[in-house]
Amino acid sequence: MVLILDGKKINSEIKQDLSTKIAIKIADGYAKPCLAIVQIGNTKESTKYIEHKKKFGHAIGVEVLHIHLPDTVKTSDVLTEIQSLNTDDAVHGIIIQLPLPKHIDRDTIIEAVAPEKDVDGLTSENIRGLWTNDKGYILPATARAVLTMLEYYNIDVSGKKVVVIGRSTLVGKPTAIALMNKGATVTVCHSGTKKLSDHTLEADIIISAVGFPRLIDEHFVRPHQVVVDVGITFIKDEEVDKVHGDVDFKAVSEIVAAISPVPGGVGPLTVSSLFQNVFDAYERKISK
Amino acid sequence: MVLILDGKKINSEIKQDLSTKIAIKIADGYAKPCLAIVQIGNTKESTKYIEHKKKFGHAIGVEVLHIHLPDTVKTSDVLTEIQSLNTDDAVHGIIIQLPLPKHIDRDTIIEAVAPEKDVDGLTSENIRGLWTNDKGYILPATARAVLTMLEYYNIDVSGKKVVVIGRSTLVGKPTAIALMNKGATVTVCHSGTKKLSDHTLEADIIISAVGFPRLIDEHFVRPHQVVVDVGITFIKDEEVDKVHGDVDFKAVSEIVAAISPVPGGVGPLTVSSLFQNVFDAYERKISK
Repeated sequence: MVLILDGKKINSEIKQDLSTKIAIKIADGYAKPCLAIVQIGNTKESTKYIEHKKKFGHAIGVEVLHIHLPDTVKTSDVLTEIQSLNTDDAVHGIIIQLPLPKHIDRDTIIEAVAPEKDVDGLTSENIRGLWTNDKGYILPATARAVLTMLEYYNIDVSGKKVVVIGRSTLVGKPTAIALMNKGATVTVCHSGTKKLSDHTLEADIIISAVGFPRLIDEHFVRPHQVVVDVGITFIKDEEVDKVHGDVDFKAVSEIVAAISPVPGGVGPLTVSSLFQNVFDAYERKISK
Repeated sequence: MVLILDGKKINSEIKQDLSTKIAIKIADGYAKPCLAIVQIGNTKESTKYIEHKKKFGHAIGVEVLHIHLPDTVKTSDVLTEIQSLNTDDAVHGIIIQLPLPKHIDRDTIIEAVAPEKDVDGLTSENIRGLWTNDKGYILPATARAVLTMLEYYNIDVSGKKVVVIGRSTLVGKPTAIALMNKGATVTVCHSGTKKLSDHTLEADIIISAVGFPRLIDEHFVRPHQVVVDVGITFIKDEEVDKVHGDVDFKAVSEIVAAISPVPGGVGPLTVSSLFQNVFDAYERKISK
């Protein structure tokens, strides 16, 4: 029978674990961990994601500052805001909610976040940490979620053939390098890959992060494989947005050994991974 | 018949090309390009490599400053030196000759180099440029040499299966990401890869950057493949250091379509690629 990689379950265990750890810190007399989320403009999705993060943060005892700037704000004003968060000792993590309005200089904004507070792992210094496999760098939440999921089910990646589909800087590349650092032999496939199934059929573990619904069906998999679906696509179904993964769950789950569903897989784990990043940043700060 | 990827030939063409371009700039009234090489201590190999770079630089009209600091120097003194090179308008490229003595903080030293003068492509900002495939970032010379060699022989990497052997931050990783950015489907193999031949036999292009002599023999290759040997190992043979690649040239060249020899392949191209980086940095500077 196929093993379902249950992101909801792991998420609730991490949530419990973080709650306990934070409660202990507070009992020890430390201030609460604090995450600042900088939102520019009013994208509906962004607002929804932020609400979700706030709810999670409050549930585990993390203060969440929501800095909401109007769409008309200038890059220089955002930089001033970030500088003040950088130097604020009460703030342990900073997120710039993406996407940003087009007139804002995305790279400059992201790079302005202090690397030790960059809990999305997007600054040059954290990319370099991942690149050189340094200690203490911050891995982007989605990549951390994938690693956590595999670890939770004792799926060792060392020496395994892993195919990562998607070469984005937010998910594909960091996941690939993180797995490589852990000893996996990683192939990164993408839109330019000629025959994707040539690669997926050879893999021990398939990680798909494309955002193309049902890209991976029964022709791409074989028995004994592990499939992690990081794809998220919203499709309207009778006026309701329904979320779809990259994997045809029904077809693939009949063949492989283990699979993460969408929804209920990597998605829920992404938020808890983010708050693990926040807690790590908090711990590094207070242990100084 | 096998095509020999002739690094010496490409190297001399690049040398000629750079000489001409620099002569034109000087005729236009610009100052000479200048590369500063910071050496700490007296490693025999480092001195030899630096001599080689000086000779190449002088031949094409690049000023090469050799800043030779004693083994006893402190990290802070090196930083002061780098700061002064960073702010010196006459200096266009800076190299920290590796390896550094153990008491020197390597990461801090490398990171101190101004990204626009970091012609070895080792600073966070240049790694991020490669990562996000930005324009104008500086690619480490060896990775650039591999790309140049393939381009010279019109070997298109887009859509090809490329296996890179070695995951070093100086060669394996940057070469892999640069090829991925160009549309190749890249697998990175390394010491933890279980059956290396499983991967190499599937590849269109094999790039080996391990430093293990004759790792790749006839059992790892098949017809129609392209093999680029980036490995360099010195072995004493009758009291003379002889250089060996990762590939058993004799056995492999009888099977594949194209192969780069060692010596005479990527090695000579690495120096010309470095000076292409210097010239690019110089051009960006004077066109500002």
